Parts: sequence; structure tokens; C-alpha cells
Amino acid sequence: MSSKQKGSNAERELVHLFWHNGWTACRVAGSGSMRYPSPDVIASNGQTVYVVECKCSKVKTKYVPLEDIDELVGFAQKFGAVPLIGVRFSNKEWMFLSPFDLETSGKFALIKRESSAHSFSEIVSHSSSRLVATPFSQ
Amino acid sequence: MSSKQKGSNAERELVHLFWHNGWTACRVAGSGSMRYPSPDVIASNGQTVYVVECKCSKVKTKYVPLEDIDELVGFAQKFGAVPLIGVRFSNKEWMFLSPFDLETSGKFALIKRESSAHSFSEIVSHSSSRLVATPFSQ
Repeated sequence: MSSKQKGSNAERELVHLFWHNGWTACRVAGSGSMRYPSPDVIASNGQTVYVVECKCSKVKTKYVPLEDIDELVGFAQKFGAVPLIGVRFSNKEWMFLSPFDLETSGKFALIKRESSAHSFSEIVSHSSSRLVATPFSQ
Repeated sequence: MSSKQKGSNAERELVHLFWHNGWTACRVAGSGSMRYPSPDVIASNGQTVYVVECKCSKVKTKYVPLEDIDELVGFAQKFGAVPLIGVRFSNKEWMFLSPFDLETSGKFALIKRESSAHSFSEIVSHSSSRLVATPFSQ
């Protein structure tokens, strides 16, 4: 399976998780001929909107270009949403990090299997509008 | 060009329009293996979120299954967004109708070239949070 297919499958899995927990969610179409910033998945429970950049990794550390993270944050701010990096390491549950709370090295954010992160159940229970302004800051 | 391609091109055109007017917007990926309700385009200016079902037509009247409209409304309510039907008749600018204000016939909504509708500039200027609750009702 190509890494693109794996990425799409991971996004679908995340969309299922949101729906099964009472949220709406959808995958965003690839940019194609357009080049606007966009997340991979958008989810909402009517109060909080998450825009999620999804990553998969078979190795212990995932390097994410800071440029991608800046784009996600820009999109989220304009949309009025909470940006999240969702990472699915092999044989591990989804973990979610705020872009404002990442370890960086040069032009990359480093996300490790053992990084401190939020679980899926945490993000779907942090669903007050207060978190839109200050995600996970408290 | 297939009708699917025409539909995708119309959606891309609409996404461009939103960005060029200071909004964020993206196309939603096709359902593929998933069968959850979803709109074609999601757009936000940070206050109002529109979820748009896009239709194209070469003829004077577009018939839209009421089932599709119910799905859009359900998604919008759960998301906390304003549902819109965006129709692009050949050689005519985009027109936008609220699902709550459609002429119906049997199991279909009828949208005519000459139907009363909102222009693109109207929908991007109706951007107060008040309209989320009562879209175009005033």
C-alpha cells in the first residue's frame, strides 16, 4: 500500500471515530489545481471545530515541516477552529498535539511515539467553546 | 467533460471565490468507502460557517432530491453551520438558496434559473453570527 493510501485510510479511520462519538467529520479534498492551505480532516460537535493535519509513521519519530504547521494554524485562525496535529504511529492509538506545543528542530517539528499528547477521548471531551480561543492551554 | 468533472470544476470555482473574498474554503472529499452525510464545500470567515451543496445545470430547472437536502441540513445542524444550496446555471452567476426556502414537487426541490436567490456577494456580506441561527430570515 502506498504512503498516500495509508494516509487516506488513516484519515477515514479518524472520520469514523468522530462520527461514532457523536461528532460530524469529513475529509478535505486534495488541493488538485488549487493551492490554498487546508487541513486533512474537519470535525465539529456544533461548538468546537477541529481542523486536523493527519500523519502516520512506522518509525519512532515523525518530522513535520514547520511550514505545514504554519499553514494549518493560519487556516484554523481564519476559519475560527482549533488546529490539531493527529499522529497515528504503527500499533498505537491516535495521539493529538496542539501546534502551539511542539518540540522543534530546525525547520521541523518532532513528534515522538512517547511525546506527551492528547488521546482521542480527550479531544472529544474538551468540547467547550472556551477551548477554541485557548486550546489545551489550561 | 463528464458531469462529475463539471461539478468538481464548479466547486473549485466556488472555493476560489470564497478565498478571493477573504474567506477560507475547501472541497470535501467524496465519500468513497464511507457513507456519512457531507456537503461539497465548507467555507468560513471565522464567524459564519457555510456548508454548501453545489449543483450545476444546463437546463432551466434543477431538481434536487429532498433526501440530499435533508442530509445537508442535518450535517449543518450538527456542525453548527449555515446550510446553503449553491446553483450554477450555464451562463449565469452563482445563486444561493436556503434549504428552508425552497419550492418543492414530490420528492424534489425545484430550483429555477429565475428563482429568487442570494448572490455570492450577498452571502459573503451576511457574515454575522446572528445569521447562523436564522439564515436569511430577515
